[in-house]
Formats: sequence, structure tokens, C-alpha cells
Amino acid sequence: KKIAVLSGDGIGPEVTHQAVQVLESVADRFGHQFIFEEALIGACAIDQTGDPFPQDTEQVCRNADAILFGAIGHPKYDNDPSAKVRPEQGLLAMRKKLGLYANVRPVTSYEALEDKSPLKNEIVHGTDFVVFRELTGGIYFGEPRGRTENGATAFDTCVYSRHEIERIAHQAFQAAQKRGKHLTLVDKANVLATSRLWREVVKSMAAGYPDVELDFMFVDNAAMKIILNPGFFDVILTENMFGDIITDEASVLAGSLGMLPSASTGDSYALYEPIHGSYPEAAGKNIANPVGAILSAAMLLEYSFDMLEESAAIREAVAASITEGIVTSDIDASSTYGTTEVGAHIIS
Amino acid sequence: KKIAVLSGDGIGPEVTHQAVQVLESVADRFGHQFIFEEALIGACAIDQTGDPFPQDTEQVCRNADAILFGAIGHPKYDNDPSAKVRPEQGLLAMRKKLGLYANVRPVTSYEALEDKSPLKNEIVHGTDFVVFRELTGGIYFGEPRGRTENGATAFDTCVYSRHEIERIAHQAFQAAQKRGKHLTLVDKANVLATSRLWREVVKSMAAGYPDVELDFMFVDNAAMKIILNPGFFDVILTENMFGDIITDEASVLAGSLGMLPSASTGDSYALYEPIHGSYPEAAGKNIANPVGAILSAAMLLEYSFDMLEESAAIREAVAASITEGIVTSDIDASSTYGTTEVGAHIIS
Ligand SMILES: CC(C)[C@H](C(=O)O)[C@@H](O)C(=O)O
Ligand SMILES: CC(C)[C@H](C(=O)O)[C@@H](O)C(=O)O
Repeated sequence: KKIAVLSGDGIGPEVTHQAVQVLESVADRFGHQFIFEEALIGACAIDQTGDPFPQDTEQVCRNADAILFGAIGHPKYDNDPSAKVRPEQGLLAMRKKLGLYANVRPVTSYEALEDKSPLKNEIVHGTDFVVFRELTGGIYFGEPRGRTENGATAFDTCVYSRHEIERIAHQAFQAAQKRGKHLTLVDKANVLATSRLWREVVKSMAAGYPDVELDFMFVDNAAMKIILNPGFFDVILTENMFGDIITDEASVLAGSLGMLPSASTGDSYALYEPIHGSYPEAAGKNIANPVGAILSAAMLLEYSFDMLEESAAIREAVAASITEGIVTSDIDASSTYGTTEVGAHIIS
Repeated sequence: KKIAVLSGDGIGPEVTHQAVQVLESVADRFGHQFIFEEALIGACAIDQTGDPFPQDTEQVCRNADAILFGAIGHPKYDNDPSAKVRPEQGLLAMRKKLGLYANVRPVTSYEALEDKSPLKNEIVHGTDFVVFRELTGGIYFGEPRGRTENGATAFDTCVYSRHEIERIAHQAFQAAQKRGKHLTLVDKANVLATSRLWREVVKSMAAGYPDVELDFMFVDNAAMKIILNPGFFDVILTENMFGDIITDEASVLAGSLGMLPSASTGDSYALYEPIHGSYPEAAGKNIANPVGAILSAAMLLEYSFDMLEESAAIREAVAASITEGIVTSDIDASSTYGTTEVGAHIIS
């Protein structure tokens, strides 16, 4: 099995390195062979090639059976969102070119970490839902976008086709069937034409999934409900821009931003990445939490290679390290364990 | 002074009635005369006239010195967002026709209510910021919007002009000058052309407000930061759709959705309303919290009539009622006080 490794910027390389080590130990233990091929993306790719998602990298991804991704972004681009070439463009180009239209983010609370949650313990307790965010459509890619000739007006276009909605909605319905059988479509159908299409399409698909309870929620309501009663949710389905906001909001509930994995999948390729960013302030300091990357590797084994036992073994090792307090300082401020120690413990 | 009273639907009439009573007692005590003129909006306006924002109502608003608004919405429209005539259209038409381009929402925590917050007490403690949400532009109103001929694709357009950004940004800068001197622009400048224009315009205005510290935050980051560290914010400025999500998210922090007021102002008119919705399940039961409406009346006195002492008197009476525990059951589940009792206590 070939795995493309795109570590990217900031803490990306250190945490991805731990995930690769974990995969290697899984290969040893379970008798698999994984071939890792590294490639550039993000700010480091711009530095070396001028392009945040070079052709070479695209080729490495297309040749692989799965992609392991770290993080991208560098402070030198932060205050210059209008720079001609930016790391984010690499991410967006990759999603679009590889057709990674479904971003899947599980949000799960760990009992041992409830004190770390910004929410009161009794509210966050038992949180366990997953968000399906559409990733290659909507206002992120719609045309026309830009400025009027005199520069005094700017515009963006949000576009969705029935087909784009159906393919991710099927995934979300199927996930709901395997989980709590409850799907919530988050939209703004009282204002947006695109949201009304989402509602129409998803409603028309419900008959095919009679065991799933479907409901609809306006995005402003969802932003409240996620904080007030996260236990309400089982599977959330939403469009690209709302998903960007909702998934990040949801990701801090469990008090463990550094621990959450994600998958971005399409019909031909699948990519796995921790949801945290490149966190440049921490780069090279051996303080970054490798668990998000390691759990992303577990998702890779489960979804792309159907290696359920292997993936469960990783999750158990992670859970044990938390219970034993072998965690980085973002989880326990008094901890003296670093990225490599936590990685090594999970491997052992 | 003439005040247009648009109570609307659900609990709107009951809470607005309390706010009107409070204004009448202020008039008595301070020797003013307020003339109240009622008009229809929302579902009740559709029922009686077929139009959610009838011409008569528009005229009443134009003739008034300020507008007091309740809430709109009725369950019969909830599952039918594509109904030809909907209550929300009245709200959007009113905002657009009266040019109410700046929605201002203070978010303040009350020490006595920290246990009610979904956030841990130490996180919500001391929260005190205000959001300026642009209200008449962006994807809410941009053209073209709709469906392609075969109905298989839907689209919305987000548009902003320099002028639309400048006029609300001046208000936000000025508010920051009077508060903590810290302004945060929330946008998605790494993806959207409109956000890049927002950033460019706001940045170019900063020299005119040298005492204000200006920073920029992507909306996904802001959705996290509001939960993780609400104390970071002083004044937030953002566009219409992001503002819709962010203000609702922020509104639940203080554990007192029923208590938060808001103002929607433009160059010619100003409207004041509690941020809670029409909450039809509670209508007519004398359980709705009237404080959001009453504090909206206080904002009306301060911003539209420059009656600072009068407005402070209302705020003090509200704070006292909380300290004394004279609150509705959304604030204290064991409370036996209803809408009218809390209103009467604040008046007394
Ligand atoms: C970096 C940015 C373009 C990206 C997005 O908005 O999709 C990021 O926030 C994410 O969620 O992966
Ligand atoms: C009812 C709806 C159209 C409205 C909006 O989205 O602006 C509401 O959510 C609000 O925030 O006042």
C-alpha cells in the first residue's frame, strides 16, 4: 500500500512524522507493507517551487492509495491575504483537483478531558457526533468572483448543483445509519437559494433511508445548539462555508483541538489530516500534540484500507495514553511529555 | 417623541408590552411624552394583509423617531422555507427599505448568571464585547440569486461596495474608541474576494483612529475564540452572513439569551429589538423573559433620544431584579415569576 505524505508547514512535519512511525509499527505488528512517498505542499512548496501545490505533488497523490496530510500556513502570509500566491491556494487546489468533496470530522469528548473543555462538564459529557462538510463547491469556488473594474465593489458566488449535494448527502445518510440514525441538515434556507436546493434534494432522498430521522436547522441556530446541547447531534451535513465555521466551533468543545482527526474523501482519492493548523509558534519545539495526526492515520487505515483491527489498536493506544496521563502540555499544563515522547508511548 | 411599536409574532407582543410599560413609567418619572403607534409585521401581518411588511407599517416606521420591535416567525412556515410569502421577508424588507445597515449587539455576562452559562464560569467571567454586523448587504441581498432554468443548480451572490463597508466600519471604530479601543474584523480573506475588500477598506481607515488597536481574524478562528476566550474581544466588526452566525453563537455565552438587546441603525432610522426569536411554544403562557425587550427600550432611549440617565435607570432596575432573584424561569428554573411580574418589578 502506498501512502503519500504531505507534511506541510509549521508543526505539520513533526506530528506527521509521529503518525508515520505509528503506521510503521502497525505494519510490523500486523504484517503489512506501507510505502511512504513524501511531497511538498503549502508555504514550503512555494519557497522551493513557487507553487503551493506543485504538479509533482499532485502526481504523488494520484499514485498513492491514501494521503496523509499535516498542516499548511506560515505567518509571512497571514497579514497579506491578497498576496498573489498563498499556501491556502495549495489546499484548495488539492481538494478541487483530487475531487475531495466530503470532509468528515468526528467530534468526541473524552471523559478524562472534560475539565479541559471550555463548556461545563455536564454539557460536554458524552458529546459524540460527526460533521460532513461539502468541500469542493459553494462560495469557495463559485464564479464569477473578484472586483468590478474600478475596484469599488467585490463579489463572490455561491453555487451548488443537485449532483454535488446528492453525493455527499448519501455519505451522510449512510453514516447516520451506522450511528445514531439521526441526520441534521444545517443551512440558511430562509435566506439563500442554494440552501433551499440543499433542503429540497436532501428531503427527496430521505425516503431511501427510512431508518434515519432527518431534521433541518438554520446555521445560526446550529451555532447556538452546538454549545448549548451538543448531545443533540449525531450526524451533521452542511455546505462548505457553514461547515468551515461549524466544524471549527465544534472542534473546541472537547477541549482537545490537538487530538481531532479528519478525512477528506471523494470518488477516487482520500486524504487524512489533523484538524489543527500549522501553529508556527510551536514548530520545532517538540510540544505539538501528535494525537490528531495519529488518529488521522487510524482513520486512514479504517476508511481507505479497511483495516479495522489495526485502526482500533491505534485508538486504544491513544485512549490508554490519555488515561495514563502521557499527554502533551496542551492537554495537561503540568505535563513534561513532548511530541516524540507521546508518539513513542502510543507506539509502545 | 413618537415610537413605532412592531410587536410581531409569538412572544413578541408580551415582551414588547412590558418594554412599552417601562418606557411609560420612564416618561412619567422624567417628565417626557412618548407616543406609541402600533403596526403589523411578520406572520400576523401576512394573516391580515398578505404582506409581511405592509406599506402602512413602513409609513408608521418612517413617521416615528424610533422603532421598537418584538420578534417574528410562526411554526407554520418553519418546514416550508420555500413558501412564496414568509415572515422573514418582512424583516429583510424592513431592514433594506429603512436602510438599517448596522446591527449592534452587546454581549455582557452577569456575575449572578455565570452558573447558567454553557461555558465554564472562569471562561465567561467578565465577558463584555459588542458585535457590529452589517445588515443590508452581502449574500442576503446580492443579485443574481435563484435557480438555473432546469432547476438543477442554485446560486447566490455576495456583493459588497466600499461605501457599504466604510459606513458601518466608522461606527465600529467609534464604538471601540469609547470602549476598550480594540477592534477585530472577522472575515474569510483567505478565500473570499468580498472579505479582501473588507480588509482593505478597514485597514485604510485605521489611520483615522490611531487610538484603536485593529486586528483581523478568520471567521472559523473567531467561532473558536468566542468560546475559548471571549474576554479577548472588545468590538467585533463583520459582514452580514458571518454576523448572523457569530452573534447567535455569542448570544448564548452569557446564559441569558432572553436578556440580550440589540439595535439596528442606519442614517435615518433606528430599530431596537431583543435578540431572541418569536418562541411560539411559549406564547401566551406568561413565561417569556421580558428583559431583552426592556433592555432594548433602554438602548432606544440612549441611542435615539440621548436620554442617558433614563436609560441607565432601566439598566440598574434590571440588574437589581437579577440580584434579587426576580427573574423568569429561563434564568432560574425554580422561579415562579412570569413575564408580567418581572416587568412590574423592574418598573417599580
Ligand atoms: C485554510 C482555509 C482555506 C481552510 C478552509 O477554509 O477550508 C481551513 O480553514 C480549513 O477548514 O481547512
Ligand atoms: C430570520 C432571519 C432572516 C434573520 C437573519 O438571518 O438575519 C435572523 O436570523 C436574524 O439574525 O435577525
